[in-house]
Amino acid sequence: MVSWKQAAKPFLSSFKRFTSMSSVKQEMNSKSKLQLSLKTPKGTKDWAEKDMIVREAIFSTLSGIFKRHGGVTLDTPVFELREILAGKYGEDSKLIYNLEDQGGELCSLRYDLTVPFARFVAMNNIQSIKRYHIAKVYRRDQPAMTKGRMREFYQCDFDIAGTYEAMVPDAEILAITVEGLTSLGIKDFKIKLNHRKILDGLFKVAGVADDDVRKISSAVDKLDKVSWEAVKKEMVVEKGQTEETADKIGEYVKLKGSLTEVYAVLSQDADLSSNELAKEGLKDMEILMKYTKNFGIDEYISFDLSLARGLDYYTGLIYEAVTQASAPPSNASELKKKSKNVEDASEYVGVGSIAAGGRYDNLVNMFSEATGKKSAHIPCVGISFGVERIFSLIKQRADLLSAVRPASTQVFVMAFGGGKDWEGYLPERMKVANELWKAGIAAEYVYKSKANPRKQFDAAEKAQCPIAVILGKEEYQDNKLRVKRLGPEFADDDGELIEAQDLVPTVQKKLHEVYEGGVDEVTRLLRGL
Amino acid sequence: MVSWKQAAKPFLSSFKRFTSMSSVKQEMNSKSKLQLSLKTPKGTKDWAEKDMIVREAIFSTLSGIFKRHGGVTLDTPVFELREILAGKYGEDSKLIYNLEDQGGELCSLRYDLTVPFARFVAMNNIQSIKRYHIAKVYRRDQPAMTKGRMREFYQCDFDIAGTYEAMVPDAEILAITVEGLTSLGIKDFKIKLNHRKILDGLFKVAGVADDDVRKISSAVDKLDKVSWEAVKKEMVVEKGQTEETADKIGEYVKLKGSLTEVYAVLSQDADLSSNELAKEGLKDMEILMKYTKNFGIDEYISFDLSLARGLDYYTGLIYEAVTQASAPPSNASELKKKSKNVEDASEYVGVGSIAAGGRYDNLVNMFSEATGKKSAHIPCVGISFGVERIFSLIKQRADLLSAVRPASTQVFVMAFGGGKDWEGYLPERMKVANELWKAGIAAEYVYKSKANPRKQFDAAEKAQCPIAVILGKEEYQDNKLRVKRLGPEFADDDGELIEAQDLVPTVQKKLHEVYEGGVDEVTRLLRGL
Repeated sequence: MVSWKQAAKPFLSSFKRFTSMSSVKQEMNSKSKLQLSLKTPKGTKDWAEKDMIVREAIFSTLSGIFKRHGGVTLDTPVFELREILAGKYGEDSKLIYNLEDQGGELCSLRYDLTVPFARFVAMNNIQSIKRYHIAKVYRRDQPAMTKGRMREFYQCDFDIAGTYEAMVPDAEILAITVEGLTSLGIKDFKIKLNHRKILDGLFKVAGVADDDVRKISSAVDKLDKVSWEAVKKEMVVEKGQTEETADKIGEYVKLKGSLTEVYAVLSQDADLSSNELAKEGLKDMEILMKYTKNFGIDEYISFDLSLARGLDYYTGLIYEAVTQASAPPSNASELKKKSKNVEDASEYVGVGSIAAGGRYDNLVNMFSEATGKKSAHIPCVGISFGVERIFSLIKQRADLLSAVRPASTQVFVMAFGGGKDWEGYLPERMKVANELWKAGIAAEYVYKSKANPRKQFDAAEKAQCPIAVILGKEEYQDNKLRVKRLGPEFADDDGELIEAQDLVPTVQKKLHEVYEGGVDEVTRLLRGL
Repeated sequence: MVSWKQAAKPFLSSFKRFTSMSSVKQEMNSKSKLQLSLKTPKGTKDWAEKDMIVREAIFSTLSGIFKRHGGVTLDTPVFELREILAGKYGEDSKLIYNLEDQGGELCSLRYDLTVPFARFVAMNNIQSIKRYHIAKVYRRDQPAMTKGRMREFYQCDFDIAGTYEAMVPDAEILAITVEGLTSLGIKDFKIKLNHRKILDGLFKVAGVADDDVRKISSAVDKLDKVSWEAVKKEMVVEKGQTEETADKIGEYVKLKGSLTEVYAVLSQDADLSSNELAKEGLKDMEILMKYTKNFGIDEYISFDLSLARGLDYYTGLIYEAVTQASAPPSNASELKKKSKNVEDASEYVGVGSIAAGGRYDNLVNMFSEATGKKSAHIPCVGISFGVERIFSLIKQRADLLSAVRPASTQVFVMAFGGGKDWEGYLPERMKVANELWKAGIAAEYVYKSKANPRKQFDAAEKAQCPIAVILGKEEYQDNKLRVKRLGPEFADDDGELIEAQDLVPTVQKKLHEVYEGGVDEVTRLLRGL
């Protein structure tokens, strides 16, 4: 008679701490480089293994927060009628992916989640909604050297549509932005904040003609990537402004600081106060200051007049969250020059903003008007989390990744026996696994009639499975099963021999020990707790 | 002094049972019909409101089952290189959506999740994986009269790749299919099951030439939609088979019954037993019978020789789950004729199969070989749940839909006061909501400084919110809050006046009362419990 323990002995002692999947992954990477014809399209990628698990933890954290704020989710088609997207993205429209004209309607892949949301609101005549949407968007960009810029990437949006008192939903969106990032363990970030009306007002004050405002705004928008000199040159040489106008703009867009500080400076500015648009914007900022205090988020906010945001549709407050890791330092261009001979130049290449958004009061209107019906004016404000950029920040946390298990398997069902004519209990293992599945317990077994103990332990190890249910050749004939904790600290533990009918409660009890406290390890680490 | 109760009194009594969103929805539908230029592309739709919540419950139920079986998830790009999809879908290739050639690689939207999975396995040289994938796929079909056929629709796949003993993973896939459907409260279904090798063998035995096998198979595949006469005509007239061959095929494909019954008949068939392919298939079925018994799923299985499955890549076991509601009865064409004058002809139009799949042992190989490297032979078997068809079955369950709340809001924060100069406690409501959010509690408030009690109760009602936290004008100045259950049965309940510092524990206690047992109502109803 061979007991399960005798059969397994040689393997139990070598049951080393679960290795990460890194060796498998390395092999995968080297192979895929050789097989050039077998790939995903440029700028796209597969999400698998630990990356996928971390990404899902990010999604569930963020959607939990959105729900906490009364959000409901919406899913729109991945492509829209081409005319829906037309005229919404300014200079970036050239990046839209079109579907081939195969007869019928002309369609394009969505460029963001905001325009489809506005289309939905207008189409269904919705008066108010708080919606979140986590989905992929598409841009025919040149996949950049900078981390995280892809042609297919996720956005994670929360928007509030409806006519409300000034700055009330806006302030909540900012609170959600802070809640979202801190819940993902990102603490050292700033939300750069500006107001389109103040920006447009200061352009006017500086002498920019009405028709030039948008293109000057998009020049200012580049200030986080290039120097002021380059932006000034663009304004003067390419966009026909006078030196004087450019310099005046330069003075304003240098301003940044706390809401209170910058508001104090601007509200004293006689030129700006004479402009109606700017005055409206400043009134908003005054109200906002009151609300951000109640949400306790002032420390994260930097009122920054150089923030312009590229998209055409913003009409009020605009904002962008950056981290130390994602933002180039203020002397970026200098550092870049210096670092030519330095090994780690990548340090100064930011991943860009990790969340961004603003108020867009006319977008729904644009759609409503297109229907020829009396237009419904539905103001909107929202935030879009840059999930892939956030992901690349989080991926740097080694503690987090090492805690991620490849699969969710809780129990590995094994059989140990011996003798030439032993059948290996495969049907019996199936039966036991089936009982566990029915009780909601994740179970696997080796897909082999006569699996030797080594193979079965290897498989359990690969799945980082915490519990084994063992069918010993003789024990099982006596209607008995052995339930045993796995892992190096239990190498000498025989486990517990139980009556077969007690399987489910015994396993549940052991699982309770394993997952004591009930906290999901990945989510805990994600929050930086 | 106006107490919160006095201010609210007129509204508490009219606080009727939460209405469903149906009136809002009706309005939405009628409007959207008028606005024809504002729509989603043909064959696509928006998912919102209750539909979205039910769909998410379906997804989480199925992915829970997949994880229980050791599955890991994978996310591939929505488009693939066009050459990856080429030659995989037989006659259906014409339904593939292409991206416009805007320079660079030629790409197409994925047609299913199986080919991208096989590409992933081949590309990364993976030897074994159990993966699930829930995502949208694209087919330029004519959106049909039959329910649930769209151009963009979800698939929900579980596949096992790897070299294993015959029928071991196949049997588990069948167990997962049963587990998936029953967990969604679908009990009256059958899994039609056949084997490509038996099918190919019987075609040979009937006299079909090697080159004609695939096209004859695709003729047989139509048997669930058209009569045998029509299929026979297609074989003889269009596909050049003799009457005799067609009749012989006709005899075989009429066979259906339990695994044991049909196996008994076929294993006695001298013609079939003389064919090598058919013999291999029958050997598989013999093994399978043993395993399905261990999983206790025999009652769901119907061995049906008329099942052929359209796709080129299947090589072994094939299966398709149908329900009473989804399958046309065996005399469908007759009934159709008769029902011309009958009002409810739609009764006989099935929604098609609700889950389908099979074994495809050469697909990964096709990709590996394309790389010019020594081919890795990775056999696969899988199941694809037709989520949208399942969804339309589930949507008929009124009890389920009426239990779905539009949002997850748990607490509505209100302020009641009075007097012309009362400011309405908006910043104070924000502060209280913020405290709840930080404790992980879903809270909302009306976005208005001076919101009257009626407006606040209406908003809470719309969100079907179970608890109110009330800031009474004087009570709040005394650092006190009122926590009150909402709903008609609590109309006369004053709630509990508490110290402001006790807010979170008090709300948590009340929430515990509301969600007693902790069971998610939607999930419970989904399972038909």
